[in-house]
Amino acid sequence: MEAKPLRVAVAGLGTVGVGLLHLLRERSALLAERAGRLIVVTAVSARDRKKDRGVPLDGVAWFDDAAHMATAAEADAVVELIGGADGIALKTSEAAIAAGRHLVTANKALLAVRGTELAAKAEKAGVTLGFEAAVAGGIPIVKALREGLAGNALAQVYGILNGTCNFILTTMRASGRDFADVLAEAQRLGYAEADPGLDIDGHDSAHKLAILASLAFGTRIGHDRVHVEGIRHVSALDIRYADELGFRIKLLAIARRTEAGIEQRVHACMVPLASPIAHVEGVFNAVVAEGDSVGRTVFEGRGAGAGPTASSVASDLIDIASGRRAFAFGVPAAKLEPLRAAPMAARRGGYYVRLMVLDKPGVFADVAAALRDEQVSMEAVLQRARAPGEIVPVVMTIHDTEEAAMMRAMARIGKIESVVEPPRVIRIETF
Amino acid sequence: MEAKPLRVAVAGLGTVGVGLLHLLRERSALLAERAGRLIVVTAVSARDRKKDRGVPLDGVAWFDDAAHMATAAEADAVVELIGGADGIALKTSEAAIAAGRHLVTANKALLAVRGTELAAKAEKAGVTLGFEAAVAGGIPIVKALREGLAGNALAQVYGILNGTCNFILTTMRASGRDFADVLAEAQRLGYAEADPGLDIDGHDSAHKLAILASLAFGTRIGHDRVHVEGIRHVSALDIRYADELGFRIKLLAIARRTEAGIEQRVHACMVPLASPIAHVEGVFNAVVAEGDSVGRTVFEGRGAGAGPTASSVASDLIDIASGRRAFAFGVPAAKLEPLRAAPMAARRGGYYVRLMVLDKPGVFADVAAALRDEQVSMEAVLQRARAPGEIVPVVMTIHDTEEAAMMRAMARIGKIESVVEPPRVIRIETF
Repeated sequence: MEAKPLRVAVAGLGTVGVGLLHLLRERSALLAERAGRLIVVTAVSARDRKKDRGVPLDGVAWFDDAAHMATAAEADAVVELIGGADGIALKTSEAAIAAGRHLVTANKALLAVRGTELAAKAEKAGVTLGFEAAVAGGIPIVKALREGLAGNALAQVYGILNGTCNFILTTMRASGRDFADVLAEAQRLGYAEADPGLDIDGHDSAHKLAILASLAFGTRIGHDRVHVEGIRHVSALDIRYADELGFRIKLLAIARRTEAGIEQRVHACMVPLASPIAHVEGVFNAVVAEGDSVGRTVFEGRGAGAGPTASSVASDLIDIASGRRAFAFGVPAAKLEPLRAAPMAARRGGYYVRLMVLDKPGVFADVAAALRDEQVSMEAVLQRARAPGEIVPVVMTIHDTEEAAMMRAMARIGKIESVVEPPRVIRIETF
Repeated sequence: MEAKPLRVAVAGLGTVGVGLLHLLRERSALLAERAGRLIVVTAVSARDRKKDRGVPLDGVAWFDDAAHMATAAEADAVVELIGGADGIALKTSEAAIAAGRHLVTANKALLAVRGTELAAKAEKAGVTLGFEAAVAGGIPIVKALREGLAGNALAQVYGILNGTCNFILTTMRASGRDFADVLAEAQRLGYAEADPGLDIDGHDSAHKLAILASLAFGTRIGHDRVHVEGIRHVSALDIRYADELGFRIKLLAIARRTEAGIEQRVHACMVPLASPIAHVEGVFNAVVAEGDSVGRTVFEGRGAGAGPTASSVASDLIDIASGRRAFAFGVPAAKLEPLRAAPMAARRGGYYVRLMVLDKPGVFADVAAALRDEQVSMEAVLQRARAPGEIVPVVMTIHDTEEAAMMRAMARIGKIESVVEPPRVIRIETF
């Protein structure tokens, strides 16, 4: 190995940071062979210097301030593993680029909010902005969209981007248990945070989706134009009905080019069993990309955790060490087009609806009239035998229709006296 | 666009070649944006100059001799779409590299036989050897193994690498029809060649597997060390039994690092329904790569056809135009290690066995004794009610055991008088 080592400064020594240090140390020879030179950690920064992290740090410079490290360390590349869309993560990232250092980050929030801007700065500084680890953990989907499928115009990209939600939904189905119960289990197992909102309310998926959409469509990142719903409202009852109807319920993140603009949405979906994405279980992530030449491609793997995330960071570092360069979002930042976002009301597709109905004569006629008045057409209906006067679930599937009409029909149905709960609507995606 | 265009010479104008010409023409602006410069076809070569291929060739130089084109055309890169492990494909490829031109090829047979050698020559000449299109069609698996998962030591890589076989097995299962019947249909639909041996006898999968194994393990390609079986012997009866036992039958190509060396094998497998690969249907391909950091990753997409193959060729050309370079097989050719191949007899795993038995007292005792003598342990057995003296199938699953012991037991069982056909054995892979 004659070439000079690539010197790396790591900001943030949580699980992922420590995992990266282990990987770079234990696979040092293999990585050097693949990269054409050694990759060595020369500096680290974290909150608590005294904490024993089980990884030797001798010969590695310690910085209390990550942003200071980004400019002061003897490093060619800075790896940002701090997290958060602003504050020290942003400061460190901007400092690294300004100092002419390559930046590798696993920070989806930062990318979603500042990605276009950081890409432009990195380009100008002649350094790489690597973020393979920011989307879908260990799945090399950023490289796949940016390089592997670069010969395609993409029609849509969608997937399961949050392992916490997929674990919860998978466990709910397997056990028949309710959301709150399974969330508590996920928290005990370390699959969900104590404050789980970022995951279960869909925001983490939305960040990742905004990044994928930019890569897929060559548009500026528009994370504030993502329609976001989470999975708190998914009930054990709906999961049972999904089974009966031949669907799985998944929290999907979907970006699609339509005539009305680019759709970006995160919400629970009913997916038919024939779709590969229906079979992605537990903490796994998957991304489906549909190109005009290649057709449908599916990428599946672990979406989080020290190993998968470190794997993606290492792949970015190997690219940097090898001198492989790419435009961060596939094309020069200046050529990224403004995002023309399609309104959610323009979404077209099928729907699953569950009503809780006090069974009285005429209720069903009222429901049917509301649908008819909005020209929403029912496909199938499921209703169990029941005693008169009982509150029973009535489940319908709705033919492809426009979201706006569907929402109007649901508003009407919600007002029917014998419909005792707001209608529960889950979009059907057949792809 | 200030940079000079990348000039491309295309050898072979079959479906894929014409597809590539269409793609490069129709997506010219998009590709130029992603590559940083135009990609233009300056020369083509094919057998019949007069044939109308539905693609304009004005301004493109015509060569009757592809090997001559490889050196004489005004081109920076040569795309070889001729096929075959030697002859004109080899001559053209060697000529291109010797002339200092980048070589992009979809030719798995050539790569399987000559890949290590061509990689060394390309490295010496300072040109790229691109072969994303040679394995799994449109799936960017070469890039994923070489770059995206470069931070990992891989434990195994396996997959469905032949769409023809997967179509036949999927259709047999869906229709209950027999192999010969479905093969004839595949031939009518253009999914199988008139001479289908390369596909259905497993050789095409073996070529691709040898390439993947080299990428995954950093070893010299050893296509002659692949154990190859095809799918001619898979019967409708075995497919029904697989269903009943909770398996799918798939033609898998498996490369695995074991203590005995590297396993490389292509054969029909029973795969449990819980495995993602069980759900890859029709002409789709899939590759599963297991890394020490990333865990299991799955890549799925179309394995053949003009669009997917052209997509992969275009991705290689964009890499070349962008100046992105990588060692063809992940590490310098001189560092590829000799392949230490594990003997097939050392394979460990479960087995499905179907015996056709003339039902007489004592047969089952003889079968059980043969298994016991070879210390092969039965897991389950299925036998339908039958009339005495009738020939009936007896199906067994066998616990994890060594191939050598299993084959000895089967040889014994095959000699039992009342076992009227050779035992039908399908390996179970649970991954």
